[in-house]
Amino acid sequence: MSKNLIERLPERPDAEALLGALSWDAAGLVTVVARDAKHGEVLMVAHANRAALEASLATGFMHYYSRSRGKLWKKGEESGHAQRLVRLRFDCDGDAILAEVEQTAGACHLGYRSCFAYEWRPEAGFAVVGERAFDPARAYRKKG
Amino acid sequence: MSKNLIERLPERPDAEALLGALSWDAAGLVTVVARDAKHGEVLMVAHANRAALEASLATGFMHYYSRSRGKLWKKGEESGHAQRLVRLRFDCDGDAILAEVEQTAGACHLGYRSCFAYEWRPEAGFAVVGERAFDPARAYRKKG
Repeated sequence: MSKNLIERLPERPDAEALLGALSWDAAGLVTVVARDAKHGEVLMVAHANRAALEASLATGFMHYYSRSRGKLWKKGEESGHAQRLVRLRFDCDGDAILAEVEQTAGACHLGYRSCFAYEWRPEAGFAVVGERAFDPARAYRKKG
Repeated sequence: MSKNLIERLPERPDAEALLGALSWDAAGLVTVVARDAKHGEVLMVAHANRAALEASLATGFMHYYSRSRGKLWKKGEESGHAQRLVRLRFDCDGDAILAEVEQTAGACHLGYRSCFAYEWRPEAGFAVVGERAFDPARAYRKKG
């Protein structure tokens, strides 16, 4: 099998051919980077199995596979902070996806717009730079 | 151990404390997303072990760990298309890093500026959208 995704694809692939040509890891997953479709901000990194990508394409909202919980989940299913799928980009070897999305409120469970809320700069060291988008205590209520 | 990186860090972490608090996977790796520091373009996704991050911080150029070759590598060591490290961002659970870099020429071994050269849009289907940055036949010469 070619290392390069493009060489594994027919000339005009449909969604099924595209998903069939991805390079899944030993657990059947690819890495997904979610990015704000309008502003370009990187929001989060997660994983998807084939069922999660199929659900994302079928519903128009991002679904992922949780390695810690061992299950498929819809982003925002608890908090309401869903990601509407605008377009997907695939990388050269077909094991990573860049999902361009419209993010409701914020992606991070700690209340930030982006999960990448912590910065290290060689000259300045560590800083919390995340933009607060919502109150996590309200968004993630304990289920009783 | 807390799920959240920030709760595993001292108040003003130095680089060693920061690396020590990361959530490495079973293979000792974290996911790294490289992004153009100026234009915000997502260039590639790779992995890093602790030695790769230490080398990146020590030299100011991105180093990664190749899972297929089982070794640490400097981005651009063959092609010359290195990534100067501008800043790192860390995500909420500490298992993914967003590296903001200055990319020489292009990141993709196929000659594109970004490895994410292939697009899927719900309404339009598949398209090659990558911007050509260099001739891969010249950049990756066979070693004789």
